[in-house]
Amino acid sequence: MSLIINIASPKLETIRQRGEVFEDRYLETVADIVRNVKSKGDEALFEYTRKFDKFDVNNQNIKVSQKEYDEAIKNVPENTIEAIHKARENILSFHKLQMEKTWLIEKDGAILGQKITPLERVGVYAPGGKAAYFSSAMMNILPAVAAGVGEIIMSTPAVSGVLNQTLIAAAKICGVSDIYKIGGAQAIAAMAYGTNNVPKVDKITGPGNIYVALAKKLVFGNVDIDMIAGPSEVLIIADNSANPEFIAADMLAQCEHDELACALTLVWDKPLAESIEKAVLRQVENLPRKEIALKSLENYSAIILVDNIDEAFNISNRVAPEHLELCINSPFENMTKVKNAGAIFLGCNTPEALGDYFAGPNHVLPTGGTAKFFSPLGTYDFFKRSSIISCDEKYLQTSGKMVINMARTENLEAHARSVETRLK
Amino acid sequence: MSLIINIASPKLETIRQRGEVFEDRYLETVADIVRNVKSKGDEALFEYTRKFDKFDVNNQNIKVSQKEYDEAIKNVPENTIEAIHKARENILSFHKLQMEKTWLIEKDGAILGQKITPLERVGVYAPGGKAAYFSSAMMNILPAVAAGVGEIIMSTPAVSGVLNQTLIAAAKICGVSDIYKIGGAQAIAAMAYGTNNVPKVDKITGPGNIYVALAKKLVFGNVDIDMIAGPSEVLIIADNSANPEFIAADMLAQCEHDELACALTLVWDKPLAESIEKAVLRQVENLPRKEIALKSLENYSAIILVDNIDEAFNISNRVAPEHLELCINSPFENMTKVKNAGAIFLGCNTPEALGDYFAGPNHVLPTGGTAKFFSPLGTYDFFKRSSIISCDEKYLQTSGKMVINMARTENLEAHARSVETRLK
Repeated sequence: MSLIINIASPKLETIRQRGEVFEDRYLETVADIVRNVKSKGDEALFEYTRKFDKFDVNNQNIKVSQKEYDEAIKNVPENTIEAIHKARENILSFHKLQMEKTWLIEKDGAILGQKITPLERVGVYAPGGKAAYFSSAMMNILPAVAAGVGEIIMSTPAVSGVLNQTLIAAAKICGVSDIYKIGGAQAIAAMAYGTNNVPKVDKITGPGNIYVALAKKLVFGNVDIDMIAGPSEVLIIADNSANPEFIAADMLAQCEHDELACALTLVWDKPLAESIEKAVLRQVENLPRKEIALKSLENYSAIILVDNIDEAFNISNRVAPEHLELCINSPFENMTKVKNAGAIFLGCNTPEALGDYFAGPNHVLPTGGTAKFFSPLGTYDFFKRSSIISCDEKYLQTSGKMVINMARTENLEAHARSVETRLK
Repeated sequence: MSLIINIASPKLETIRQRGEVFEDRYLETVADIVRNVKSKGDEALFEYTRKFDKFDVNNQNIKVSQKEYDEAIKNVPENTIEAIHKARENILSFHKLQMEKTWLIEKDGAILGQKITPLERVGVYAPGGKAAYFSSAMMNILPAVAAGVGEIIMSTPAVSGVLNQTLIAAAKICGVSDIYKIGGAQAIAAMAYGTNNVPKVDKITGPGNIYVALAKKLVFGNVDIDMIAGPSEVLIIADNSANPEFIAADMLAQCEHDELACALTLVWDKPLAESIEKAVLRQVENLPRKEIALKSLENYSAIILVDNIDEAFNISNRVAPEHLELCINSPFENMTKVKNAGAIFLGCNTPEALGDYFAGPNHVLPTGGTAKFFSPLGTYDFFKRSSIISCDEKYLQTSGKMVINMARTENLEAHARSVETRLK
């Protein structure tokens, strides 16, 4: 397999399109599920859970019990529990820095400002089965904790009744209030509208398959949602200061995620490109997820030869990668060139995995080019703002006429009179 | 007509449900329009524009020309232009306070932070016809200006080729780059995917009818969108310090918007309730939009008798009103009781209209109870964040083992190795 291409390669267009979801096929199915759960509540929720998760859910077993939490924490190795605690501390302390405060200013006799209030109840979705990642639950729960959300519930499918033990333990350690053993579009609908068993939330976050993603789209507006996640990607910009073995390892860490994952490395030095390629092809051989990684390498990954560092940044900004590694000399000096990226990893001691689990910033990041407009999941996703306006009489007397003029221009006479009646 | 009710009245449930959109009916129609514009570009866009707007659009006339801008500004009365300039100044200066800065911290050898970058191009939707409000265009454009967005385009239908002159003038004064004479779901799709004439944007904001709202939902993910706006509402909490004539005028300013608009006043003093009712019924008689206001009063508005001020705040938090007026003694002292509201107007000199047009905070606010989780449109909607992570060797050596443990727990061996290969 050859991984080295130039920027004229058609492979780049294939990569660009990989995240495009042909959602129309599933839209009606998902709309049906959402409608049914909305109108029939638990009855529909239980029926779908039995059908899709092969789990005989009922009023007694829908919530994870204290006994199940205790067992989960006992079942997870002690050093993993320790790592979870340390990661929790790092993630929480970073996210507290994202918290905002209510502020007020005085201007010409008016007091204006912005009040900050945490959301009351949020719902985190955590996939089950092979996609059950405890780190993902942590990254969804902890920003809500940092924002001061009153109640954080989680939904995760218990396929055939089985729960991922690390997932349950990590969620509990991070401060989840209750975990519901439900999944798919039906879990999203249950949290969005509420059922007898599942409380209605204000916001739903967390990754999921196409059914979950579409259900989130459909309930948006009734509750808030986070962004729609696509397949994961990394873009690495590397110069001769980089160790090819590290770059190769970082590419493969991305490729092992799934067959649609994408790892791009941009270099302007052909021998470096060749060393990285060689290291990738050697390292992939003894990976447990070799088959997945090979498919991702073959279809959606590449080492791209560019003219120079400026071209590398131009391409990177067009791609708007979820993860961007700057394995170059003076990465901080070059950071201003980055316009679009979910998270930026600077220097050779910062493999993406450090950010995935541990350092503090969120690993829920915009994918598929959406870093052009979306931000990482953060504490700011779990509070809302209210505007504050208070005017004294003098302000009203001075500005009133202009407001009346504008209201009448829009033919909103009652708006104009609500001001006029207050003028002397 | 009697407006006074108590909290057991079934009218409250009718009011609660008024914003619920039965969207399923239109979903397929809108999905078709979006699909067609996405695949056929201008051809489909032009066809829909001819059909729905009766405007014979082409490559030459799709954009508002410099001549049309000049004419619009000439056609708007001078004092309105002056008011627009003053309002622009107030709105822009408030929104600049919402701008954030890139920050970095140092922790145990790691540098962590958050980079702020404005969006590159955004699209503002402005309805045409009777719903063409220039103030709405201002409130959508100016936060983008405050954030430093590179290019702000606007779409508005030119029904039968006619443009609202104040809308065009105000948008230009506020800094719009280009205005496209297109509307409906087809305009949303054009801005979301781009056509030969209309550039693809990163985010679409602005109000619209059900077709526009559904199209925004469907393109969400490909671009970012703002919240879905429902009918407007005000909730007023009033005590004996309030002037019943002012309260009545503020209720009617809300009711004149449309038949689905809602004005609620909460009082715990029966004579005050009766004075407000009397004033409303007298003031409504000579309003130009009397018929609309009467329908809103009859179906969705009320003066609610509550037991005391605490009950008033409890109800207000459950309603989560778009606009909340505190016409009470010591409004600031009571502000902490507000959990859910789009904008809070404090004191008797602050009619909502002041905030709708002029004071500075945004008038694009969460409706229909969504103030529980949505914020006012703001500068924060027009920039994005990127996480920054950089670790030194010592940090990596100290933390590496925990990261490796966590990655292996998730069966992500290549993640583990990307760290392990860097450890001594």
